[in-house]
Amino acid sequence: MGLILSVDIGGTQIRAALFERGSTTPLRAERTPTKAHAPGVYDRLEALVASIWPQDQTVDAIGLASPGPLDPHTGIVIATPNIKEWKNFPLTEKLFARFHVPVFLDNDANLACLGEWKFGAGQGHEDVLFLTLSTGIGGGVVSGGRLMQGYHGLAAELGHTTVWPDGPLCGCGKHGHIEAISSGTAIARYAREQIEAGRPSLMDSLSTITSRDVSDAAAQGDLLAIETLARAGKYLGIALANFLAAFDPSVVIFGGGASNSGPALFDPLYASLRENIFDPTYLKNLTFAKATLGDDAGLLGAQALAVLSAPDH
Amino acid sequence: MGLILSVDIGGTQIRAALFERGSTTPLRAERTPTKAHAPGVYDRLEALVASIWPQDQTVDAIGLASPGPLDPHTGIVIATPNIKEWKNFPLTEKLFARFHVPVFLDNDANLACLGEWKFGAGQGHEDVLFLTLSTGIGGGVVSGGRLMQGYHGLAAELGHTTVWPDGPLCGCGKHGHIEAISSGTAIARYAREQIEAGRPSLMDSLSTITSRDVSDAAAQGDLLAIETLARAGKYLGIALANFLAAFDPSVVIFGGGASNSGPALFDPLYASLRENIFDPTYLKNLTFAKATLGDDAGLLGAQALAVLSAPDH
Repeated sequence: MGLILSVDIGGTQIRAALFERGSTTPLRAERTPTKAHAPGVYDRLEALVASIWPQDQTVDAIGLASPGPLDPHTGIVIATPNIKEWKNFPLTEKLFARFHVPVFLDNDANLACLGEWKFGAGQGHEDVLFLTLSTGIGGGVVSGGRLMQGYHGLAAELGHTTVWPDGPLCGCGKHGHIEAISSGTAIARYAREQIEAGRPSLMDSLSTITSRDVSDAAAQGDLLAIETLARAGKYLGIALANFLAAFDPSVVIFGGGASNSGPALFDPLYASLRENIFDPTYLKNLTFAKATLGDDAGLLGAQALAVLSAPDH
Repeated sequence: MGLILSVDIGGTQIRAALFERGSTTPLRAERTPTKAHAPGVYDRLEALVASIWPQDQTVDAIGLASPGPLDPHTGIVIATPNIKEWKNFPLTEKLFARFHVPVFLDNDANLACLGEWKFGAGQGHEDVLFLTLSTGIGGGVVSGGRLMQGYHGLAAELGHTTVWPDGPLCGCGKHGHIEAISSGTAIARYAREQIEAGRPSLMDSLSTITSRDVSDAAAQGDLLAIETLARAGKYLGIALANFLAAFDPSVVIFGGGASNSGPALFDPLYASLRENIFDPTYLKNLTFAKATLGDDAGLLGAQALAVLSAPDH
């Protein structure tokens, strides 16, 4: 049985690692700057993979985590916000032509879910809901022991679900998506707008506000910060009630920077979830967890995808 | 390879049928009144199964479709609105003790989805979203060629997802669920409330109003009926956009009486879906279909469940 080569394509760096199946400690690992807006992103990626390719062992498969939207069934990156030169880019086909092993691709949120399931907070579960609260809100779902991908590979794009039809404008151009209310970006924006409208706050001296600033201020008793996180938590609780009714997981895993917002976010979130879930059975034995893999979630998820998808040798 | 015995437990009758695997034409079929509120529902069910049990062939498994909530993993009916004597009722265990073959159970909406997938409008697809628009709104999902059940067996309870936090009260006691806005019951209720509030309508002479009456009136140009169905369609479009982002199916199948409401419901629904879906890729090659199995969906879905779950003999 050969090795798995994992790649995580991030906005600032591309990371690659060589794993034995099921190991979280890479045999080799390298990284290179993405330089997303400069030409040659693919060439840098290919050179990085070549740089850790083993001379004395076989590689069974390559697993790739990339920002989406992308199609995991065809291996085509449809478009990424960062890497402008990748439009309908046949990523797996190009890597297969160069390295002659099966190549598997999925988006970073799905693979973070898969990584947490196999190696992190989701171990032992068969029904996993992963939510990343970051600049946006991403989702991933394992149902009955299998990653949900969907027909176009766009399943579990949970940030773009409407919970408030007349609510704030989302980055995607639609209104009232949970990402537009409860992401880190949305939390920071609401606090800033309220301060600009004249609300007093400890944050009013800051030149820019992040969701971290809001949770810091909330911890110091700042009323605007507390209200801001309560609002985000309330709608996140509504969205989570919807996701439980849709997927019925046994564990909900929160990742991303804004998942460190503490009880000022999570107390209102859980209260709203309890208020909005239509059947308390969903909450029976339901585990809530923080993601444990951190920056390695993409690499480990890509390994898991390749292991699950590739035939044994 | 033996036969499959299917049972569909309805509010007014229990139906049982004996199938060769993969056949939609039963070798034998019988039915008995459910008498849901009278004692002895289980005894009637058991006697019905015994009445079609073959003398000269083996039965590999029994498949059961029942109203929920129920747990398909344990075979326990938690509660059904109709059959009051079934509280945490170990239905599959009792049938196994009597007939000594594996028994599989799921709720009627999930099994209608499974039936349509194997025998009806979902054939050839691997990612199916089934929505039944009836007195309530039920859902079922096949993802990657497998029925989604969830940890407690409560996945795809899509009628109870919030699309309008301050919206109408749902039968479950929560506000703004899509079932409270766009089910047949909700459509009829909204029309009645508007007439009681003094709105003119062709329906104002009716002593009771059904969703069928509303679609008939809409077809005659009744403005209130048209607005009523447009409102239901608008929110159903928002919900459907959420469901596509969650499950990314290749076919959406509508069942239930209110799915016969015609363009007065479906034109606003599709317009709202197009307006609310955040990425048009979801709609690429997406098929919309009417359920084709009618009253046989539960029996055929129960057969499919048993075939998928039971070992071959």
